[in-house]
Amino acid sequence: MRYWNGSKNLSPQKSSVIVKIFTISTWKGNKVNILVADIGGTKSRFGIFSIGEQITLIGHTELSTHEYNQFSSLIQALPKGLVKGLEINLAILGIAGPIVGNLAYPPHISFEINVNEAIELLGVSKVLLVNDMLLHAYASLSPDPEAFYLVKKGEIQKGQRGIFAPGTGFGQCGLVRLNNSTYKAVLSEGGHSYFPFDQEEKDYMRFLWEELKIEPTFDNVVSGPGFLRLYRFLRNSSIPPHKIGENLRVDREFRLWMARLLGRASKHIALTYLAIEGLYISGGVVAKNPWILKEYGFLEEFLKSKAMVHLLEKIPIWVIKDELATLWGGAYYLKFGPFDVKEE
Amino acid sequence: MRYWNGSKNLSPQKSSVIVKIFTISTWKGNKVNILVADIGGTKSRFGIFSIGEQITLIGHTELSTHEYNQFSSLIQALPKGLVKGLEINLAILGIAGPIVGNLAYPPHISFEINVNEAIELLGVSKVLLVNDMLLHAYASLSPDPEAFYLVKKGEIQKGQRGIFAPGTGFGQCGLVRLNNSTYKAVLSEGGHSYFPFDQEEKDYMRFLWEELKIEPTFDNVVSGPGFLRLYRFLRNSSIPPHKIGENLRVDREFRLWMARLLGRASKHIALTYLAIEGLYISGGVVAKNPWILKEYGFLEEFLKSKAMVHLLEKIPIWVIKDELATLWGGAYYLKFGPFDVKEE
Repeated sequence: MRYWNGSKNLSPQKSSVIVKIFTISTWKGNKVNILVADIGGTKSRFGIFSIGEQITLIGHTELSTHEYNQFSSLIQALPKGLVKGLEINLAILGIAGPIVGNLAYPPHISFEINVNEAIELLGVSKVLLVNDMLLHAYASLSPDPEAFYLVKKGEIQKGQRGIFAPGTGFGQCGLVRLNNSTYKAVLSEGGHSYFPFDQEEKDYMRFLWEELKIEPTFDNVVSGPGFLRLYRFLRNSSIPPHKIGENLRVDREFRLWMARLLGRASKHIALTYLAIEGLYISGGVVAKNPWILKEYGFLEEFLKSKAMVHLLEKIPIWVIKDELATLWGGAYYLKFGPFDVKEE
Repeated sequence: MRYWNGSKNLSPQKSSVIVKIFTISTWKGNKVNILVADIGGTKSRFGIFSIGEQITLIGHTELSTHEYNQFSSLIQALPKGLVKGLEINLAILGIAGPIVGNLAYPPHISFEINVNEAIELLGVSKVLLVNDMLLHAYASLSPDPEAFYLVKKGEIQKGQRGIFAPGTGFGQCGLVRLNNSTYKAVLSEGGHSYFPFDQEEKDYMRFLWEELKIEPTFDNVVSGPGFLRLYRFLRNSSIPPHKIGENLRVDREFRLWMARLLGRASKHIALTYLAIEGLYISGGVVAKNPWILKEYGFLEEFLKSKAMVHLLEKIPIWVIKDELATLWGGAYYLKFGPFDVKEE
């Protein structure tokens, strides 16, 4: 059991943020139990937290999303012991894809999810359906220094944060500060906008447009499938996803390309969200190979900007390295979020 | 004198938003006078508003920014009659460029601006220094239907808005809804991230990188100088800025290129801000030639997305056509903004 003892940091004002949640559920006591799920294109993670004076992760589990073609079968596959005899007051479901109204449309998952179905299947009275990047964004607010890996120092200033996560796709999110204890996530599908190539990469641009019949977006360039595609372009042969790290270590050209593409994506997100409070890189691909960001090419590409180099120099960059970061992100969302998503 | 009689729409709750401003200034009566300035790369506009039950534009003027190499000389050039005998309670200065702390760093203007200097020069006790795109963003909240030109219908849903403005540069901004009466602007320098070219445009990409020695960013592709550069690439000759409209009308290839580049920028902003509440195009270039968006190529490019076409189809697009839109945007900022920028 892991927990973060937040009692020292929880001022009365911050506690009242959590009290708001208590009014969302019908719970009247001193503690609330929540389920946080991160339904990704490859993996789905589930965690149960107890929130009171401190936030405690009671238990968690992981399933392979692509083995299920219905949301109901995914939920039915959860180990019975996870929830035990707990009353769950609230469930937060993070889904990769846009949420419009009560419905999620995940582009990399074969099923849709709606709030009413989730309420019924989970037996929870209140379900918040959110974009999974919101969980990554609030994970950046972790008070645990062990959750991060510092890539580049900067001068941290109060303001906006930028977050992106290369995984099955490319998720991005902004985080704006409302006051000293609340933040609001800025949702985005910017991962599906065109990826900008350098003129020296024009053969790769042509490869993607012509041979693979796909538009080169951040989602299909700076992502697990994107880096596998890059390897096919460079070496004219395929490797399975779990071999990316191994091939990066022995293949200098592959390593330099990946570092440069990640540097460009980082610059793009840092500028897009004017991230003077920090740029956070989350998601499986970088968390497994954070050393790639120490490669020549990453910082060089990040700082390449005639107009904005002085701004970019000031921005610190972190990797969110905790595998359970998005689950904790759900818990921090209750603590730091503005709760405008409630519909009461 | 133009005014918007907001008395019908001003619920007691909304009025209390304005009361917050009264506590920022030392003003104690029923009305507040504000100065809104939009210091752009080409033009600087100044407006005086009286805000009470209704918002009234008392007077406005325009100066050519590039004729001044100091902020003080720009302010000293203001006509004496503009402010008359009015007490100004608050000044909102919109600047093209990032604002960090009390300082603005405009990339297209030869001078810096700081809050203390502005307080002294204007003789106003409270000055808010904001990114100019914040003024464009709040201008999208205008209750006046005459302020807009509808380019594409959609299904308006409560959520986020995206705004971009091609002018001397490419400004962009998000607007997130906090509740039914307040919005917060999401600041950005995303205009300085690389512009993504289609493979059929690779000669133009090379022209920009090699011959002009600049990185192709949104700022130097989708902007007044960008479209002049495009004309030089296509026709190997130069035209002055005021001839863009005339040349668009007679040169079909130029027209199609510009429509396609604007369509791509529109898609980029709509996806980046998940703009289900609407995409707004502001700035001089499009306001002068809004018909260009009816050209074949604009919508085709906007909707070209394998993963997100269904989302993009739902997003309505407007042009903010009012020349004084950013000045009104400053006034709407007082009405609809969250006022976290105050430093008291």
